[in-house]
Amino acid sequence: MPEPATPDAGGGGLVRVRLDLAYDGTDFAGWARQPARRTVQDTLEGALATVLRLPRAPATVVAGRTDAGVHATGQVCHADLPAGSLAAAPGRTDAVPTEALRRRLAGVLPPDIVVTGVAVAPEGFDARFSALRRRYAFRICDDPAGVPPLRRHDVLGVRGPLDVTAMAAAATALTGLRDFAAFCRRREGATTVRTLLEYRWTRTADGLLEARVVADAFCHSMVRALVGAVLPVGQGRRDPGWPAQVLAAGVRHPAVAVVPPHGLVLEEVVYPAAEALAQRAAQARTRRDETGPPGDPTHP
Amino acid sequence: MPEPATPDAGGGGLVRVRLDLAYDGTDFAGWARQPARRTVQDTLEGALATVLRLPRAPATVVAGRTDAGVHATGQVCHADLPAGSLAAAPGRTDAVPTEALRRRLAGVLPPDIVVTGVAVAPEGFDARFSALRRRYAFRICDDPAGVPPLRRHDVLGVRGPLDVTAMAAAATALTGLRDFAAFCRRREGATTVRTLLEYRWTRTADGLLEARVVADAFCHSMVRALVGAVLPVGQGRRDPGWPAQVLAAGVRHPAVAVVPPHGLVLEEVVYPAAEALAQRAAQARTRRDETGPPGDPTHP
Repeated sequence: MPEPATPDAGGGGLVRVRLDLAYDGTDFAGWARQPARRTVQDTLEGALATVLRLPRAPATVVAGRTDAGVHATGQVCHADLPAGSLAAAPGRTDAVPTEALRRRLAGVLPPDIVVTGVAVAPEGFDARFSALRRRYAFRICDDPAGVPPLRRHDVLGVRGPLDVTAMAAAATALTGLRDFAAFCRRREGATTVRTLLEYRWTRTADGLLEARVVADAFCHSMVRALVGAVLPVGQGRRDPGWPAQVLAAGVRHPAVAVVPPHGLVLEEVVYPAAEALAQRAAQARTRRDETGPPGDPTHP
Repeated sequence: MPEPATPDAGGGGLVRVRLDLAYDGTDFAGWARQPARRTVQDTLEGALATVLRLPRAPATVVAGRTDAGVHATGQVCHADLPAGSLAAAPGRTDAVPTEALRRRLAGVLPPDIVVTGVAVAPEGFDARFSALRRRYAFRICDDPAGVPPLRRHDVLGVRGPLDVTAMAAAATALTGLRDFAAFCRRREGATTVRTLLEYRWTRTADGLLEARVVADAFCHSMVRALVGAVLPVGQGRRDPGWPAQVLAAGVRHPAVAVVPPHGLVLEEVVYPAAEALAQRAAQARTRRDETGPPGDPTHP
């Protein structure tokens, strides 16, 4: 049995639960637990401990380890919870345990985190290693008047006007199975090979520029470097072919800025159908083992 | 000449300038200046004084005096500015003076206010009295999971699910030329007669409920009372005909709550074509004079 927990709602073992969540990253020092910092992971794990009355906060495993200031509308994590803690409270037989857990979490979580779904995970599910792909959005405003005030927490303002056609052409040229070392923060022994499935720029009905970025996984700060590489193309300071040249060179280029985090949103994590979950997780683990110590596949 | 200022960019008189602006009302105690409170009016007038190097902040007149916590994407105000202060700075002949003013304001305003347009006002323009109608939006989330974290500053969360069809029927029954005393905060001698041109509820593509509310003018807290009257209909606690009965009774009903302000956005103020401006302003003033001291037509 490759997984440490299996659905076992009646017994005394652990039950793996999938949690879907959304958060405003503005006031968090990112997903990952850090001493003396407010993080999404710490806040969520603390809330789980509170509502389940656990002596210690349960550990969560996340699909996308978002950086400080990065938001999520479609984040996914899992936690292995004591089966007994998930049972309906004494005298309450009215609710499905997972739905009751969602409601109790809503009662204790701050308004910048919302758990949108709780479910017992199918056999073999791992929020990180079972994921087939992650989809991020990055939003930019190039209106000379400035960023609409109500969007200033999730839209980056830049000097424009930006040429979205040139940006779209530059972005498309970066897709495919490649070594993204030029757009990743170096980590000794970790692979920077990823499959960038989609990288599109469009102008939305409300006049913003929006990137849609999909990959099997991302290296650390990769999405923000991909945006930073294409931005000078939009501003007319570089040719549309330049980001692809930087990519091919394979080393970080000083002219590629890692743009600020607050325009970035993790919107979706896609998993295979239940019967393929364990196989996918084994694949993902093996592939990373082959290339040395596992690179973190989850960072934006 | 009914207006205190006329376009006179070359001379030493005053020039009436129209300012279009957007703001996030979260951290403001509303539009109107108040001692020792941070207000939009104070902040904007202070910014005008700074960039125009005026010894005293110029007074602004606004189309919609929004309450604390209410937002705007299409607010309009005017100010009468010394013509000399609007002239291009010495040695700079590259910019239209109004565009230069917009840019200089962007340099000093905080990120929760954006001036989206600056223009010399046409003859007879008055931001408050020339307005033909004001359009507000109110947004509600009835998802049991809670309000999406990135929308929590401009969307009200309520217990649902809400029946939008019933709400739409109840809302439509309130439109027309009527005495809205039942939905207005009383003010001695002020009329509460308004024309509610449009009041629609729809469910948007992202699952939120959205009200579109258009009137020639609004009494104080009128939009929030109109929302509060229809909400129990959506929750199935009142019949769709109930808000119209409350309206007909003509007195405030204790079951009509004034909903919290943060779901409310002033989205548009509509003015007549330039040649009809002065006539419209005279009409608006006269109508209010006939019914006693002018009720404030601009409050949401």
